[in-house]
Amino acid sequence: MRTVYVNGEYLPENEAKISIFDRGFLMADGVYEVTSVLDGKLIDFDGHAKRLERSLNELEMPHPDVLPDLLEVHRELVRLNDLEEGMIYLQITRGAPDDRDFVFPDPEATKPTVVLFTQSKPGLADNPTAKKGIKIISIEDQRWARRDIKTVQLLYPSMGKMMAKAAGADDAWMVEDGAVTEGTSNNAYIVKGNTIITRHLGNEILHGITRAAVLRFAREAQMQVEERSFTIAEAQEADEAFITSASTFVMPVVDIDGASVGTGAPGPVAARLREIYLEESRKLAI
Amino acid sequence: MRTVYVNGEYLPENEAKISIFDRGFLMADGVYEVTSVLDGKLIDFDGHAKRLERSLNELEMPHPDVLPDLLEVHRELVRLNDLEEGMIYLQITRGAPDDRDFVFPDPEATKPTVVLFTQSKPGLADNPTAKKGIKIISIEDQRWARRDIKTVQLLYPSMGKMMAKAAGADDAWMVEDGAVTEGTSNNAYIVKGNTIITRHLGNEILHGITRAAVLRFAREAQMQVEERSFTIAEAQEADEAFITSASTFVMPVVDIDGASVGTGAPGPVAARLREIYLEESRKLAI
Repeated sequence: MRTVYVNGEYLPENEAKISIFDRGFLMADGVYEVTSVLDGKLIDFDGHAKRLERSLNELEMPHPDVLPDLLEVHRELVRLNDLEEGMIYLQITRGAPDDRDFVFPDPEATKPTVVLFTQSKPGLADNPTAKKGIKIISIEDQRWARRDIKTVQLLYPSMGKMMAKAAGADDAWMVEDGAVTEGTSNNAYIVKGNTIITRHLGNEILHGITRAAVLRFAREAQMQVEERSFTIAEAQEADEAFITSASTFVMPVVDIDGASVGTGAPGPVAARLREIYLEESRKLAI
Repeated sequence: MRTVYVNGEYLPENEAKISIFDRGFLMADGVYEVTSVLDGKLIDFDGHAKRLERSLNELEMPHPDVLPDLLEVHRELVRLNDLEEGMIYLQITRGAPDDRDFVFPDPEATKPTVVLFTQSKPGLADNPTAKKGIKIISIEDQRWARRDIKTVQLLYPSMGKMMAKAAGADDAWMVEDGAVTEGTSNNAYIVKGNTIITRHLGNEILHGITRAAVLRFAREAQMQVEERSFTIAEAQEADEAFITSASTFVMPVVDIDGASVGTGAPGPVAARLREIYLEESRKLAI
């Protein structure tokens, strides 16, 4: 039984409830972050905290009082749940007004809802899937236009994961105007020679915290980085492909829409970046 | 204090809660309907029930056991809350699995969440706003691609309502590829001579229950109906403009982006359609 955090209280997970009038429930008016935990420590916490604040600001969502203390809440959840390896999920919504209304509630009367819970994933860093890679399919990107804001409007990514499953694949990359935007819950990359190619930042994709770290490590390791769009065809002909996210770190992609990428096995660049990312992240973990 | 319905129980509204693991809260994996109540009776209930079932099917969401009994639940809520005039809001989500995951939960283990509550709006039918009309602004349509499914992904429509408010208007019409799709929570219409023009059905707009009824009444009243796209410029030059929805019925639009529509006052077609809709709906109410 997990202990979770709901609006200032640490509760058993089966008692963790929110009002049916919460705007997260009624209108998807909420944002979230997922922070990985390795060796009982938080990975890239500052990056997630900064992005969370940006998401709140982009939606003109009031900052909850607990915002400056979120590091403490994360650490307390790690402690209460003996979390060694896994993730901490955090969600903030515009709160639960007295009634449902499209108009934002008065921030003086309605305080944001803050929820955090742990997800224990022993073996996250040593995930055997990283040794064989994942298969992905391409699907149309049908999401809303502001994917740079990490909102809980995750129905389409969830449907995409199910489409991948139905096709015998592990995940899906979304395509808009002929170019890959990103994966259902990760950023997408290809490798050509010594160059790593990943879509440029914009409203079309999430500004991945792991993406930023991996690109920094890649540059430090003297690799070329090109931030630009690419197509599925270009990805299928690349030497390597991979994804990054807070919970998969760097994960090789070996098959795209049934076509093997490179040798059909994880390539050296993805493997090396995964190694560097885990090594450096563990050093910087707090 | 309202009595609301949550998963088979009738509860005081302040005790109506759902799990933080509900996919409606975590992933906007839910659909909804709003049914109007006049004279204590339900308006267009069958239309809402049919669309609800379609929304569930489009998302491959399991049907809750209560689905065949929803009319009784609606009536019980009307009775328990002495609801004379207003709305009943209904939401169904894919339920609360043990943990958060993009993959849909096993429908055997996770039952859908069903929530209903009343909203009392005395004077809904005699809304004085119908006599003066509303002002709207146009905004870019940034929603996801499947607006024909009535999901709770309402963050952008909610933001649109706030943009309208900030601009001194009442609501916003959304524009995609140069053409009006619909309002933030209503369908959009213009009138030219004896012809009512409203966007054709497709994935781009909600298939309004009130829309279907109003178009039927219009045809019965020997008016021409053209279901096609129109632009904001065409709307500004039209004789009349109006919106329809379950809670506004037929509501005249008198100003679009600062330009008066027609005489700048509600026109005869919208007034007549509102009258017919209310009259016929009251007759058919159950």
